[in-house]
Parts: sequence; C-alpha cells; structure tokens
Amino acid sequence: MIDASTQDAAQRVMARCDALAEISETPGQLTRVYLSAEHLQANRLVGEWMTSAGMHSWVDSVGNVCGRYEGLDSTAPALLLGSHLDSVRNAGRYDGPLGVLTAIEVVAHLHQNGIRLPMSIEVVGFADEEGTRFGVTLLGSRGLTGTWPEEWLQRTDAQGISLASAMLHAGLDPLNILQSRRAPNAFCAYLECHIEQGPCLQAADVPLGVVTAINGARRLNCRFTGQAGHAGTVPMGQRQDALTAAAEWTLAIESITTARGCDLVATVGHIEVPAGAVNVIPGLVNLSLDVRGPRDELLNALLEALLEKAQQIAAHRGLTFDAEQFYSINATACDPDLQQRLVHSVTPLQGQPMLLPSGAGHDAIAIADCWPVGMLFVRCKDGISHHPLESVTVSDVAMATQAYINTVLNFAYVHPASRQ
Amino acid sequence: MIDASTQDAAQRVMARCDALAEISETPGQLTRVYLSAEHLQANRLVGEWMTSAGMHSWVDSVGNVCGRYEGLDSTAPALLLGSHLDSVRNAGRYDGPLGVLTAIEVVAHLHQNGIRLPMSIEVVGFADEEGTRFGVTLLGSRGLTGTWPEEWLQRTDAQGISLASAMLHAGLDPLNILQSRRAPNAFCAYLECHIEQGPCLQAADVPLGVVTAINGARRLNCRFTGQAGHAGTVPMGQRQDALTAAAEWTLAIESITTARGCDLVATVGHIEVPAGAVNVIPGLVNLSLDVRGPRDELLNALLEALLEKAQQIAAHRGLTFDAEQFYSINATACDPDLQQRLVHSVTPLQGQPMLLPSGAGHDAIAIADCWPVGMLFVRCKDGISHHPLESVTVSDVAMATQAYINTVLNFAYVHPASRQ
Repeated sequence: MIDASTQDAAQRVMARCDALAEISETPGQLTRVYLSAEHLQANRLVGEWMTSAGMHSWVDSVGNVCGRYEGLDSTAPALLLGSHLDSVRNAGRYDGPLGVLTAIEVVAHLHQNGIRLPMSIEVVGFADEEGTRFGVTLLGSRGLTGTWPEEWLQRTDAQGISLASAMLHAGLDPLNILQSRRAPNAFCAYLECHIEQGPCLQAADVPLGVVTAINGARRLNCRFTGQAGHAGTVPMGQRQDALTAAAEWTLAIESITTARGCDLVATVGHIEVPAGAVNVIPGLVNLSLDVRGPRDELLNALLEALLEKAQQIAAHRGLTFDAEQFYSINATACDPDLQQRLVHSVTPLQGQPMLLPSGAGHDAIAIADCWPVGMLFVRCKDGISHHPLESVTVSDVAMATQAYINTVLNFAYVHPASRQ
Repeated sequence: MIDASTQDAAQRVMARCDALAEISETPGQLTRVYLSAEHLQANRLVGEWMTSAGMHSWVDSVGNVCGRYEGLDSTAPALLLGSHLDSVRNAGRYDGPLGVLTAIEVVAHLHQNGIRLPMSIEVVGFADEEGTRFGVTLLGSRGLTGTWPEEWLQRTDAQGISLASAMLHAGLDPLNILQSRRAPNAFCAYLECHIEQGPCLQAADVPLGVVTAINGARRLNCRFTGQAGHAGTVPMGQRQDALTAAAEWTLAIESITTARGCDLVATVGHIEVPAGAVNVIPGLVNLSLDVRGPRDELLNALLEALLEKAQQIAAHRGLTFDAEQFYSINATACDPDLQQRLVHSVTPLQGQPMLLPSGAGHDAIAIADCWPVGMLFVRCKDGISHHPLESVTVSDVAMATQAYINTVLNFAYVHPASRQ
C-alpha cells in the first residue's frame, strides 16, 4: 500500500535530513538557531527543494521559508503543511525537518502526478519553534498568527544581540513583522508531521500515531517544612521529617496519576534538602511538580487532588506544605475531523489506529489559535529526542509520507466544503 | 530528697556554665576549641574550682584539666568523673561543661562533709570531644587511654596550624602525649553526666535518664539509577524514575525501622537528582542513609533489611541500586552494674526509672576501651543542642547533682570490691 515513488520520497527525506544536519554552527554537532547564517542557509536549501517540488517559494517577514502550490481555486483557503527548521543545541536531525520535508514530498507527489487540488497547498518551514536563541518559543508560527508580543524585539541572545538587530543582520525589517500575519481565511487547516519524542509508538509496535491533543502543563515549586533534628537522638516516633513527607507525596503523585489514566503524567524532577547533611533529620524539602495532560479540566482536577494529598500528608505528620505555580499552558486539542482523516489514512497502512497525546510542544499550539490543527506522529527509537541519537527508520518515514499524501488527498476531495 | 546544699550546688553549676560561656573566641556566640587561648583560660578557671572543691589540680600532657580528691586508700583504682570543656561553633553552654561542673559538686559535697571514700575520686575536663578544630574527635579521652593515632599531630586546623604546633603554642610538648595515658588500674569506673541532646526525657516528662548504650552508627552513600526521560512524553507506566524508587525506599526505611523498635533510628538526610530539572524524569538519585542503634547486631540486621528492600524496589521498577558504607562506629554498651547504680539513685528522685540510649557520641566511647562506663542524662528543652538555645532548668540540674552524689556514695560503699 506504499507506492514505490513514496519509498523514493522517504529516501529523499532521509537524505535531506542528513543534508540539513550538516548545516550547523557547531562542528560535529547539530545546532541551528533562529536568524543564524545556518538558518538562512537552510532556508535557501529548503526553498530550492520547494521549487523543485513545483511550488513557488519565499521567506516571510519573520524568517519562515514558505512554498505554495496553487489549487484550482486560488482564492479558496489553502491547506497549510509544515513544521520547523531550527533546533536545540546538540540536537537530533528529525525534530522539525522531518515534518517540513515530508510536506514537500506531499506536494512533489501532486506535482509529479499532475494533480491540482481544489484548494492550494502551502508548506512552511518555521523559523523558530524551540526558542533556543532568544528564550521564547513558537516565533515562526506566531509570525503567521500575528501574535508576537511587543517585547520580543528587545530580547537578547547570549551574546547580547537583540532580536531586532538579528533580524536586520539577516536582511529582515523588524518593523515589518506583521507582514507575515496571514488572514483568517488564508488557510482552512494545518497538518504537521513530527517525530513522537516519546516511547509510546515503539511500545505499541506501530510506526504512526494520530495526535489527540498537545498536553497542557502546570509547573509548581513545592515545599514541606518540618523540624530539623539530630539523626541520632530523635526517636522515629518523635520526628517531623520533611523528607519522609516528601517521599510519601512523591509516591502518592505516582499512584494517583497512574490510577486516573487519561494520558495524565506527573513528575517530581527536582528535590533538595537545603543545608541537609547525612546526620541531620531534614527540616525543609523543596521539590518541583510537573503535571501534564491532554484535557485541561482533568489536569486541573488531578493537580487539585495532588495538592490536597500533600496537605493531608503534611497535617498527618505535623508539618506544613505550600506550593506556588510558576508555569501554566493550556492543552491544545487537535481538530476531531482532522484526527478522523488522519486515522482513516493511518489504519490501513499499519493495520490499526493509534491515538495519543503529545507530551511536547509544537508549532500547532500557536496555529490552533487561528486554524484547525492535526498532527501525525512518527515512531522514534527509544523515545529519544533533543539528542544526537534521535533516530527514525526509512520504512516508518515512507509510511508517514504515504499517510500524509493520503490524508491531504482525502481532505481535498472528500467534503472539502466542510472545511470552509 | 534533694538537699538544700545540693540546691545551692545546682545554682553554682548554672552560674559556672554561664561564666564558661563567656570564654569564647566569637563575641556574642560560644565557640571554644582545643588549645585556643579560651580553652587554656577555661582550664585555669575549672582548675581553680577543682581546688576550691578540695582537689589538687593539674593539666595533663594533652590539655585535659584534672583534679583528684584522695581516698582512704590512694593506691586503689580511682572513680573517674567528668565530661568535656570544648564546644562546637556557636554552641550551647551545657553540652560538656554541665558534666564537669556537676562532677566538681560531687567532690565539693564530700569535701564539705568531710567524707573520705575508700577510693580516690578524679574529675576531668576533657580538652576536645567535639573535634571542632582538627576534625577528629575524642582527643581528650583518648589521651587518657593512650590511643592517639600517629597522624593526629600532623593534622591542621582551618588556618593551617598543625596540632603539634598548637600544642607547643599552648605550652604542651607533642613528644609527651603518652604521659597523659593512665594505667589500667588507675581507674575502676567512669561516670559522666551530660545533657540528653534529644527529646526523649522531655517527652517522658522526667528530668533524668540512665544511658544504656551509646548508639553505634553506619553511614552510606546510596544511588538509584533509572532512565532519564521527557516529563511530558513518557507515560506513567513506561518510566524508570529513580526518584519515585528513592521515595518508596525512604518510606520503607521509616516504616521498617519504626516497626523494629529497640531504639533503632534511620535517616535519609541528603537527597539529590544530579542534573535534574522540573521537566525531566529523574534518571539518577543520590541519597544518604544514617542508621543507629544501641546494639550492633540489631543495627546490622536492620541495615541488611533496608538494603535488601532497596534492591527489591529497584528490581521491581527495572532500576539498579548500589550503596557504599563510608562510616561505621560500633555501639558502646554502658556497664550493667553502673546502669543499675544510676537507676537506684534516679528512681527515688523522679519517681520512676528511665533508661534510654544515647544517639550522640561522648567521651565515654573512648573511655569504655579501658574502663566500665556509666552515663546520666539531663533533660534539655525540646531536645535542642549544638545551638545557643540549648537549655536546662536549675531544678533538673539539682536533681542530677543529687543523683550523681548518691550514685558515687553508693558506688564507694556498696560492694566497692566488685569494681576491682
């Protein structure tokens, strides 16, 4: 069910991921940040690939490389495909580029077969999703939605270069940021292909998954306060040990979150006993809590239950507990119709559907503010991402490309009017 | 049952603790370390008090201030009483001095009443128990037992001054260390009065306790190794979280140790997730374990059970666990006969006996290598020690002084031959 030409396309995608991985500011590693010489070089190369695939190509006012393949009705809202071309430091080569390059192959397929769809297709290689250089994320996709906060232009990188200066240096005019903004009726939908960056597809032994939502997240700094004491002189029954309280809560977080299911996850990633020592009963413990899930109401309910549990544990042990939330992002639901269309393409290829939330953030979060979004995940080895060992197989990429092509064809021809 | 003269003695002990607390190298705080000008000044003052109490007094070759009150038979092994005069930094005023000053009051009682006991009484103010200056403990008491390791003389303090130089500066000859060593038949027993440094007497609502043993201790550096992962993308059921394993073990340490009773205690005082972050599942956790107890066989059995539990938890969660012991000190049993004599004195005074182990170390650990030891604990407020808030009441000190006097009289007249 995977065409020979799609097999060739997958080989090309892999080779092009390798070629882009060579465009790096750090020899022997892959690091490509926003508005760097390497970013501009990657944009030129991707622009050429877009042109070869039958698109006309340009770089927009925030540095996204864009291509357009005209449809039969060039005034109809276009279908937007893409992902990002920037990277974290010492990155893997598939996080981002895989989605741009498979999108180009979708258009190449149409072009090679002389297919004009009812609506145009646009492909975008977003300029900055990771936020590596200026510490803010989704700059590329928020260029399309026109939602850059004013303060972003004044932000500086590690060398003290402002974002505005970097734009000028790259031949972009910071006064023209809003030119990249697209009208609400410019697009009818956004589809993004991306590596999973987690272990679920590998564990389920399937190459592809359809994303139900991009997880919302809450992060908190938490604290148990008890009474420090001499580890030798205070009997077990007379202690107000902040660490055993924190341990009890950490285990409760694990069991309560696991019991709730619904793709909720919770993590204590940081813990410390300030001024702790081997022979002192901990009087104070600081720890972090990170909770995520695809549905905000379930996420909020989980968080409430976990905090209530912490208070119970503290009260039972004669301690105090407090917590401050320092980060919150709502969940982004993927469009149900796009999910269904993706499932419809994926199921015959791998023999089963596979639906999962995304634990990591993506450009689709920003795009969802304006247009319906859908995401296709590709299995990556051992769930490893943001690391040179990031790996996908050519056969999985071929299946992803085939599913992507099939989804776009289905979208364009079956009930296209429903997308207006 | 507490004599009026003992009430006066207790007032004197409190006033002398205050006077010694003024002899400090840090204004507004109490810090008095080995061989400092303040240490020598304290020795002179305590030597004068010994003389006033009817003793002849001297400073031995390692800096202990000693006093002797001759018995009817000056060749009979003497009864040794005492504690230490050095302190930790920013110390309390009772840890050590209380035991020296109550011992002087025991002799003062004998002297004032014209009592000569069958054997002589010696009182010692040990020069260094805490190890604050040179990082090794029990220097004073190990002077009497003659067990200084050779390397101690080369040890340096924070200013780079060697112990040998410090001795010369204080008028002591480092070549004469062994002159402080006492022959095995010099003493028949050692009795030490000390603040509890823990909360047990306060919790039991009694002023005095008889020490059964000075706890043995084992300290270990431990490590759970799992697999770091993305806090958003790895489902709860697919994690190898080193911190949840460490939490499960920390709770098990608490419950297993509590269930075993027998005055065993166990503490996780230090924990860290190296390179941890709020959004990363911990792949590695380092933590410490401190276990103590008055009986080595029970302590060893507990430690074995805890380590076996850690291995079970690790295996069940697909992690690894390892631990290295870096410190071990055996328990020091107090002499059963001395315990009984102390109980015999304490019970009528407070209406009940109270036996407890010592969680902290004392000079008696070193002395027990050569002579039977017994210890009397005095209640301290909220178990606070090694802190300026260290506090005892004059009425508790009066009861302790009375119990000390009664025990010495009982020891000297009832079965004195049994001590030979």
